[in-house]
Amino acid sequence: MAATASYPLKQLAELLGAELRGDPETIISGLATLQTAKPGQVAFLANPVYAKYLTDTQASAVIVHARQANDCPVSALVMDNPYLGYAKLSHLFDTAPKRSPGIDPTATVANCAQVASSAFVGPNAVISAHAVIGENVVIEAGVYVGDHAVVGDDSRIMANAVIYHEVMIGQRCVVHGGAVIGSDGFGFAPTGKGWSKIAQIGSVVLGNDIEIGANTTIDRGALDNTTIADGVIVDNLVQIAHNVQIGENTAIAGCSAIAGSTRIGKNCVIGGGCGISGHLEITDGVHLTGTTMVTSHIREPGLYSSGTSFGTNADWRKAVVRFWQLNDLAKRLKGLENNVRTYLSGNDR
Amino acid sequence: MAATASYPLKQLAELLGAELRGDPETIISGLATLQTAKPGQVAFLANPVYAKYLTDTQASAVIVHARQANDCPVSALVMDNPYLGYAKLSHLFDTAPKRSPGIDPTATVANCAQVASSAFVGPNAVISAHAVIGENVVIEAGVYVGDHAVVGDDSRIMANAVIYHEVMIGQRCVVHGGAVIGSDGFGFAPTGKGWSKIAQIGSVVLGNDIEIGANTTIDRGALDNTTIADGVIVDNLVQIAHNVQIGENTAIAGCSAIAGSTRIGKNCVIGGGCGISGHLEITDGVHLTGTTMVTSHIREPGLYSSGTSFGTNADWRKAVVRFWQLNDLAKRLKGLENNVRTYLSGNDR
Amino acid sequence: MAATASYPLKQLAELLGAELRGDPETIISGLATLQTAKPGQVAFLANPVYAKYLTDTQASAVIVHARQANDCPVSALVMDNPYLGYAKLSHLFDTAPKRSPGIDPTATVANCAQVASSAFVGPNAVISAHAVIGENVVIEAGVYVGDHAVVGDDSRIMANAVIYHEVMIGQRCVVHGGAVIGSDGFGFAPTGKGWSKIAQIGSVVLGNDIEIGANTTIDRGALDNTTIADGVIVDNLVQIAHNVQIGENTAIAGCSAIAGSTRIGKNCVIGGGCGISGHLEITDGVHLTGTTMVTSHIREPGLYSSGTSFGTNADWRKAVVRFWQLNDLAKRLKGLENNVRTYLSGNDR
Repeated sequence: MAATASYPLKQLAELLGAELRGDPETIISGLATLQTAKPGQVAFLANPVYAKYLTDTQASAVIVHARQANDCPVSALVMDNPYLGYAKLSHLFDTAPKRSPGIDPTATVANCAQVASSAFVGPNAVISAHAVIGENVVIEAGVYVGDHAVVGDDSRIMANAVIYHEVMIGQRCVVHGGAVIGSDGFGFAPTGKGWSKIAQIGSVVLGNDIEIGANTTIDRGALDNTTIADGVIVDNLVQIAHNVQIGENTAIAGCSAIAGSTRIGKNCVIGGGCGISGHLEITDGVHLTGTTMVTSHIREPGLYSSGTSFGTNADWRKAVVRFWQLNDLAKRLKGLENNVRTYLSGNDR
Repeated sequence: MAATASYPLKQLAELLGAELRGDPETIISGLATLQTAKPGQVAFLANPVYAKYLTDTQASAVIVHARQANDCPVSALVMDNPYLGYAKLSHLFDTAPKRSPGIDPTATVANCAQVASSAFVGPNAVISAHAVIGENVVIEAGVYVGDHAVVGDDSRIMANAVIYHEVMIGQRCVVHGGAVIGSDGFGFAPTGKGWSKIAQIGSVVLGNDIEIGANTTIDRGALDNTTIADGVIVDNLVQIAHNVQIGENTAIAGCSAIAGSTRIGKNCVIGGGCGISGHLEITDGVHLTGTTMVTSHIREPGLYSSGTSFGTNADWRKAVVRFWQLNDLAKRLKGLENNVRTYLSGNDR
Repeated sequence: MAATASYPLKQLAELLGAELRGDPETIISGLATLQTAKPGQVAFLANPVYAKYLTDTQASAVIVHARQANDCPVSALVMDNPYLGYAKLSHLFDTAPKRSPGIDPTATVANCAQVASSAFVGPNAVISAHAVIGENVVIEAGVYVGDHAVVGDDSRIMANAVIYHEVMIGQRCVVHGGAVIGSDGFGFAPTGKGWSKIAQIGSVVLGNDIEIGANTTIDRGALDNTTIADGVIVDNLVQIAHNVQIGENTAIAGCSAIAGSTRIGKNCVIGGGCGISGHLEITDGVHLTGTTMVTSHIREPGLYSSGTSFGTNADWRKAVVRFWQLNDLAKRLKGLENNVRTYLSGNDR
């Protein structure tokens, strides 16, 4: 375990813009949950479900909303959004290695590439011809950056990720290990006897403040670019096909797949394992629960779902048999309704 | 952006075997859609949906079928299959870097490996003992080619892909970044207390003209080989398990998974996110819509589907509750039918 | 193809603790199925479905249960669990390259890393500061091992896998090519205007005897660790989110996804393509069939399923329309039942 930093409580309060109730000189050297925190650590109370753990916490301080501040048995950092406070403090205790500027001697950097002097390029990384690596960028070991690709200031590309030629990545982005950005879209013309590959001559353009998860794939466009707007966050093993467009601040959870040319709006939340067909428009503010299968446009914001949920295999087998009889069942119901109606009206006459 | 090539229109017509209507000396330096093309670019009209954009296109020429040639306001390249024409021209404007023969000094090539003198081996690539790299092959940076593996002529293995030992890849194949071919199949014998690993002593054999998407995984066989026939195209993040066999020209879209020992026929189209159980036979010409879950053999060609489609979460919650009541609902319907039938027949008497 | 080993049958019997019926000096140089085995190879009969192939097998010997030993036309290795016998013998015929101790000159090993003298570190692998590589460990080409990470004795990390900082991997584990362990969990606090990243300061701890498939991703914990217990086997392209806990000997098939903080018990079997929501508890001994979507706790062991199975697209379209009418259909059925009951009881009066 790397050495951890420590801070007086007053410094944390200042960083958070929080009201400090307690000893400002208390030294904090870690961050934990209410249940697991030890003396010297700060905890937080964001979800009311965990309020029950406040009384007995061993933390030296807790980030709380004013509502719970009086119930806090230890020092309190009082602020409106304790979860955001936790997010901010988390970076102080991050043990991820910090990189110093410089190019590892085992890296391969093309003569005609531009690498900012403040950038780090790790062992065996490859920076290809005409690529541009911005200020303070971190290119970890084994990363491949293709010809004419651009990585904007303060972005970090983690180990063994692959950035194909001409891909543009904005500022303050993180691309996790093994992600592949700019691979060929899945474009083939049927020849009658098989498939004729279509060169994918568009690229991928990522805006700023984007996170791309491990082993996620984003294909380059067929003619135009695949585009990901500012603030989008994408989890692991997500597939984003050619010419997809994703609007600002949309979040996409793991193992979801978005087929070609679909446009997703701003501020959407796509749950894990969703499948979205191609050539669709999903408006702003759409939320999909996990494993939703989207096969048509979504014009209205809101929460959408699909699937059968789950049950015991025995119950499921019976339900599935009936699912495939549903049209017949519905017709029989209709027929019975008609029979009964006819009979009753006949009897009424 | 890399410099782009340019061609007189007559050269493009010749390449396509298309009838040229217009100025043969017009210089074309790009390819775009009807809507976005600028002067100097060629567009194409394949899908009738886009015919409305023909009149106002700014393209200097359009690839069209004879049916629309008279409506084309600019030069026309007239041919029967404009989409195939587009596919062919796309390669002229591809800005993917071309590689020259040679082995990068940072590559590791075993003494007993064979690398054709026309092949390219990029930075930090590894060509292991007894591996064979064919003519004009491109092995991009960071690729691992295991012992005794073979990469056939004109194939390209993109950055950081992993080819395990003894894997055979045919000619003119493309394997995209991060794909892993030949990893161990998921084979374990239950011991009563846990799992005993079964060494996977088969391999993977890919035919010719195959494309494998980014971060796709294809496992080696347990005893026999996993085999992919000529002309198969596979998108990103697809899982192909041990001993799967896939027939010629079958297409598999992103995030689909095919479990062990399943055989898929020729000319199938597997939509995105499908799940196909193990030990199944899927005949030729089967099409699965996206996210179809296949749990039994498919003996007849045709289009198959599964899932519930999607709706608002409120509607879905109601429908799901009823799904699990379906067997009961069906029994109640049957009972009601019997009651009514009995009553009506009693009254008839 | 690498040279294969050969063994007298008596040596195989001894290794398996099997009763040998036949010539102990028969030389065996391979392993195959009953149907494909050739003279000089050993086959096995585990699944009764294949008993029909016993009579005509060309194998020189067959691993069989005592029940079938009399039907075996060739030498027999008689034991209670022939499938386990097959698993054990498979390793004798594994052609995966064996590695000798040593650090490839192209590898990058930090001065303050510890690498056991019996370990192998392949070309271009990176062993970062304070990392610990145990006895007989194999680190294949292009693998990245982050700061303070630990790889326990006898574990093997296959080509281009990525092990982030501080990740702990136990003994006798296998991590396949392209897998990423310890990438950031998908943790972000909503700011009202977008997302604020939460540093993921937990890690990933893998026990002993674990297998992780190709391109699988396991995220580090937000505060506490993500933990995988001894004997767990995970297939390719599986996503395990932050703070997930997986119990001993659980098996997870390809393309499944487990969302954050979910706890899965011991001896579970998760089929391929399953999606398990976050913050759930799945008890010991739960089996999920492929593509099951789990949205609530599972407190009882047993077999669970979801989905609609599949059918022709024509049938499916009709069934899906009815699925979304299910609540209405159920209400109409209820109404009809009431009508009929009222009428009949009225007539009875």
